[in-house]
Amino acid sequence: MTVDPQLQKFGLIKRETPRAINLDPLQTGGILTPEARQALTEWGDGYSVCDYCGGMLDQIKTPPIYDFVHKALPAFLGMDHARVTNGARESKFAVMHAMCKEGDWIVLDGNAHYSSMVAAQRARLKIKTVPKTPAPDYRITPEAYAAAIEEVRAESGKPPALALLTYPDGSYGNLPDAKAITKVAHDYKVPIIVNGAYAIGRMPFDGKALGADFVAGSGHKSMAASGPVGVLGVNAPYDATVFQKSPTNKNKEIEFLGCTARGATIMTMIASFPKVVERTQPASWEKEVGDARWFAEQMESIGMRQLGDKPHNHDLMFFEGTVFYDISQKADRYFLYREMKARGIHGIKPGLTKNFKISTLGVGREKLGIVADAFRDIIKKYSA
Amino acid sequence: MTVDPQLQKFGLIKRETPRAINLDPLQTGGILTPEARQALTEWGDGYSVCDYCGGMLDQIKTPPIYDFVHKALPAFLGMDHARVTNGARESKFAVMHAMCKEGDWIVLDGNAHYSSMVAAQRARLKIKTVPKTPAPDYRITPEAYAAAIEEVRAESGKPPALALLTYPDGSYGNLPDAKAITKVAHDYKVPIIVNGAYAIGRMPFDGKALGADFVAGSGHKSMAASGPVGVLGVNAPYDATVFQKSPTNKNKEIEFLGCTARGATIMTMIASFPKVVERTQPASWEKEVGDARWFAEQMESIGMRQLGDKPHNHDLMFFEGTVFYDISQKADRYFLYREMKARGIHGIKPGLTKNFKISTLGVGREKLGIVADAFRDIIKKYSA
Repeated sequence: MTVDPQLQKFGLIKRETPRAINLDPLQTGGILTPEARQALTEWGDGYSVCDYCGGMLDQIKTPPIYDFVHKALPAFLGMDHARVTNGARESKFAVMHAMCKEGDWIVLDGNAHYSSMVAAQRARLKIKTVPKTPAPDYRITPEAYAAAIEEVRAESGKPPALALLTYPDGSYGNLPDAKAITKVAHDYKVPIIVNGAYAIGRMPFDGKALGADFVAGSGHKSMAASGPVGVLGVNAPYDATVFQKSPTNKNKEIEFLGCTARGATIMTMIASFPKVVERTQPASWEKEVGDARWFAEQMESIGMRQLGDKPHNHDLMFFEGTVFYDISQKADRYFLYREMKARGIHGIKPGLTKNFKISTLGVGREKLGIVADAFRDIIKKYSA
Repeated sequence: MTVDPQLQKFGLIKRETPRAINLDPLQTGGILTPEARQALTEWGDGYSVCDYCGGMLDQIKTPPIYDFVHKALPAFLGMDHARVTNGARESKFAVMHAMCKEGDWIVLDGNAHYSSMVAAQRARLKIKTVPKTPAPDYRITPEAYAAAIEEVRAESGKPPALALLTYPDGSYGNLPDAKAITKVAHDYKVPIIVNGAYAIGRMPFDGKALGADFVAGSGHKSMAASGPVGVLGVNAPYDATVFQKSPTNKNKEIEFLGCTARGATIMTMIASFPKVVERTQPASWEKEVGDARWFAEQMESIGMRQLGDKPHNHDLMFFEGTVFYDISQKADRYFLYREMKARGIHGIKPGLTKNFKISTLGVGREKLGIVADAFRDIIKKYSA
């Protein structure tokens, strides 16, 4: 048997990123708990959770997926019903596809994640975007939301079939007034998805209190789970539409293609769940917000301006300024990435200097101090 | 902070299934290699592969996802282009959704997996099923395939928009004459998906040689990967349709919602890949088929009849007979499951006695002998 020598580049590959301090907004909420790390080995094999499956993932009693999906998760999301999906984007697409016909309108906030746009495009919907307020706030207001719905009504003769609000968004970490915006949607009888991919698993969250008809969350982004895995919350009366079963395969839900996260992904989510619940308690989250604000102050003291909500209410923050850009003009555009890497700090994209976003979730005041010192150190080094 | 005492049932949960010998058709091909088991811990964190992502999963150079997706995988599948998806069903739905409009017809073989049905239903297609030959063969013939296409033409005035062939199916492990059937589809100018969820990663496979326009494979079912993860192969000229990019987000492919398997799932697939390539070499597969046939003989010697292709050409086999059913009438319907479990043998569904399917993949002649002896032992015990 001859095996292509090219194959040698595959097999076990080591991850070489420095991970002493991680500020990557995509990653801080997805770092596994020790329990999830053990669950990986326990449930890593393909189809491991199917040992006792009678045909429906959410009904599996051993391991306790039924209790998780039908009891713990709806309570955690503050929604009537829940499912585990392959990710927040898959949750959003499932709702859009089930609730809409091709050519229907959807209204999305101007801070929506690209995957909300792409999900709407995959569902072949017409998209109306709610403009954000100008720099440096980039806010989504209820008034702008109402105006966008009105525009759809003027163009198509009726309100949109669906709306979506990003809470918070992944660029500025802005938390819009979800209660007021969902009320606007409901005034027009438009059901609304709250995309909580950066909220659910990080901060206190209650879908019903926010007025959501649907909520989408991400396991690998914010619930300390190994992806791809996400959650979907659905309130009555829309469960009948979104959870519709196959006419030929009576226990298979069409929008989930019968089955979604069925191995290590759901089991790492369950493994981390007690700690995730803990970190979303108000006291814990207030401490995180305190850390974020403190870090923003440090950044502003060296000349980087924090954009978006201010004072900030989330661990994800966007900074802008010329201090590192000016250095890059003398050095090279990768100097900042290189200098941070040398200090064991990961999370600012290679090549960025003029603006970048970071997340302080779970990093802690001590390590954030090390990061702030690193930035000061780098400025000093290059101004010498 | 008070945490719901209910939460104590979550956290790390141990997997208590006996796994000394596993015959579960869903699981034998998804058992991780040692390399994949290490990759889990290395890449388990959410979004781990995104350390150096420039915005497109398949373009990531570190780890070598680009080389895997664009070089190794197309060669392995025998197809022009490949992508990694969240599973075989997601691959099939992506093709159906991209290639068809709502209300279009699709022809599926009568042995199709339920997820092919559900994917077609999610894509809102009309389904025509190719009947299988009667028991005990359950074969899909080119003639029946042509007749189904003709029926669609008679009913709708044109051939179906798409066809699908299951190779092999998950009930009988039957390998239809794919070359002849894809030729039938092409004679009507119908593009055809070959669902190789039980072929790709288990046995020699060459999509082009089979005449496939699209192939779907499963990482957690047959490529020793931690799921959900799958592969999709696409031949020209259909890549432009299936890989269409978002008009607003130029580097995001719509049918994959911008990004699919992006953590431990793809990295376990890559980790196992060299060994998976090895096990699909003809010599290795011939040995597996030899083991399957030997095991079928043992089962027939105790009165269980192997249905489907005979002599059999795949590790997945369906057995039928009354020997254990008769015992269950005196004992109870769970006796067989209980007896096998006591002997460390997993894979026959609890409650089944009259017919069940098993897979011999990778089990080896010695352990298969233990299984055969166990069956004989149980018969003896209950006939005493």
